[in-house]
Amino acid sequence: MSRLARLQAQLEEPLLVSSLVNVRYLTGLASSNAVLLVEPDGARLFTDFRYAERAREIPDVALVETRRDIYAVLPELLEGRIAFEPTVLTYERWSLLAAGGIELVPRRGVVEAMRAVKDAGELNTIRRAAAIANEAFARLAEEPFVGHRERDLAWRMQSLLHELGGEKESFDVIVASGPTGESPHSVPGDRTVEPGETVIVDAGCRVGGYCSDCTRTFVTGELPAGLQRAYEVVKQAQETGLAAVRAGADSKAVDGAARAVVEEAGLGDAFGHGLGHGVGLEIHEAPWLNAEWPSVLTAGNVVTVEPGVYLHGLGGVRIEDLVIVTDDGPEVLTPFTKEPVTVG
Amino acid sequence: MSRLARLQAQLEEPLLVSSLVNVRYLTGLASSNAVLLVEPDGARLFTDFRYAERAREIPDVALVETRRDIYAVLPELLEGRIAFEPTVLTYERWSLLAAGGIELVPRRGVVEAMRAVKDAGELNTIRRAAAIANEAFARLAEEPFVGHRERDLAWRMQSLLHELGGEKESFDVIVASGPTGESPHSVPGDRTVEPGETVIVDAGCRVGGYCSDCTRTFVTGELPAGLQRAYEVVKQAQETGLAAVRAGADSKAVDGAARAVVEEAGLGDAFGHGLGHGVGLEIHEAPWLNAEWPSVLTAGNVVTVEPGVYLHGLGGVRIEDLVIVTDDGPEVLTPFTKEPVTVG
Repeated sequence: MSRLARLQAQLEEPLLVSSLVNVRYLTGLASSNAVLLVEPDGARLFTDFRYAERAREIPDVALVETRRDIYAVLPELLEGRIAFEPTVLTYERWSLLAAGGIELVPRRGVVEAMRAVKDAGELNTIRRAAAIANEAFARLAEEPFVGHRERDLAWRMQSLLHELGGEKESFDVIVASGPTGESPHSVPGDRTVEPGETVIVDAGCRVGGYCSDCTRTFVTGELPAGLQRAYEVVKQAQETGLAAVRAGADSKAVDGAARAVVEEAGLGDAFGHGLGHGVGLEIHEAPWLNAEWPSVLTAGNVVTVEPGVYLHGLGGVRIEDLVIVTDDGPEVLTPFTKEPVTVG
Repeated sequence: MSRLARLQAQLEEPLLVSSLVNVRYLTGLASSNAVLLVEPDGARLFTDFRYAERAREIPDVALVETRRDIYAVLPELLEGRIAFEPTVLTYERWSLLAAGGIELVPRRGVVEAMRAVKDAGELNTIRRAAAIANEAFARLAEEPFVGHRERDLAWRMQSLLHELGGEKESFDVIVASGPTGESPHSVPGDRTVEPGETVIVDAGCRVGGYCSDCTRTFVTGELPAGLQRAYEVVKQAQETGLAAVRAGADSKAVDGAARAVVEEAGLGDAFGHGLGHGVGLEIHEAPWLNAEWPSVLTAGNVVTVEPGVYLHGLGGVRIEDLVIVTDDGPEVLTPFTKEPVTVG
């Protein structure tokens, strides 16, 4: 059954799909300007002339070519009770549609829930994207770090991802060395990597629109005791989290399993983010592995498992794998070693 | 007067700034998760622990550290009549705030209008970003095109932008060769450039967060008559559009001046987009040069002037400069030649 048909089967009213990623997922059309109305017995795709030719070829979807400002013309084209995506539609667009007499019903995360469970083709695409990232980490590990700027190492990683066949990076490569690693989301800067510190490298690429995501923490010689211990704790937490991943597992419990290791080591306060997130057409998507997201993992979910410890003034350690959730546990797509790799 | 103070001077009620770009413009904080409430006599910045340390250092702004989901806690922290950004705030966030008893007033484009007029520091930053792009075009013009794939040429351009000091590309580099150039927004693919066609290259980079944007159409040997003529028409239209740019000019009239040249040549239908757009912290921002946007250009606006002609089955031609609007006309930031450059 096609994605569209599966969506139609669960709709109570027509759904106006505003998320461009959701439009792509349902129709295959990658576009910067499109809206899809999924109705019980069909679908209408609204887009402008730039995408009209490609849109015309989509099976089971009727093209409605509009001017650039699609939402300005939608009130004339739609009527009745229509569901919409409340986390995507802006207030302005919502009020335009509402003023046009459409009865709007918020329906949250419908397509996102479908996207969270990947089909065989999507899994193969993500396997390829992850294999490229994994190989890029292996190659980067052979190269010199000390004396190089974070931003140059980030560019080198980006170049490796490109050379190995990635379409583009799935997010800006993170290289956080020494004390800059105390923040989980630092931007690679002019700092030069020095001996005796950790270097967090977080990177991934896209293949066919699908993302990969991997983090390793490299070591430039003998570490201060605090970071050495942090590395051991994070590695153990990561392996514990991985071991808890399987179809049927509670996502909060998976987060909790890894977090308990960090907390027992007295470092709970230094692990200030969730354990992981889903990965697909977006680098962050459902399901989420954290203390708040209530869900049960399903075979076909693709998630990261990435505990981290960030020590003020000292640096950080994060280890992240990308895995497919199966009935038997995780299929790890990023097998590059998690032992501390000393780089030059 | 600081940006915050200028904004405060024009507010009727506190403004909740949800656009992360607007937050960056007003506070200097580049973040993936922040909300700024600008009040008559102060400002409160809501963000999570990842950005708290940097946020604490911002002058005239009080930090309120929250958990990740800022909008979930805002109803407890805000009250009374508050303006918001209706083109940015999602329906879900709007309804969360509204349910919390806040009286919400849509105020559209307030900060965007400030951002449209750049100050001296911003102009210098954009000049640097444009100089890098300009030099990258000059270098790319020396390299072989024929026999190379679009995607490899795009990567080469991206690498040049990086080597020359760009922080990152300001959008995915466009390389559209031969018939793929019939669409103004094609994605570089596996097609190999052949002799006797046009190759549209559209690229820019960021410096200090600010974008540059430039397009040139290269030629790989003798063109079919239709494309040759299209090149001449686009070049003339581009120069006519440029000549109309000055402080006080009506943005529709600038678009109209260039468009008239294309229309008089009988190619009006082949020029299906606006003449240009503002450029700054975003690659597309106010003001817009098209037939619909009603505005008068102001000294300090930074806009593109980029007519194009797209011929089905044959290819496309687009020429784009980035310019600063001054009282005396345009300051062109991308002086690389607009004559047809034949590449190997």
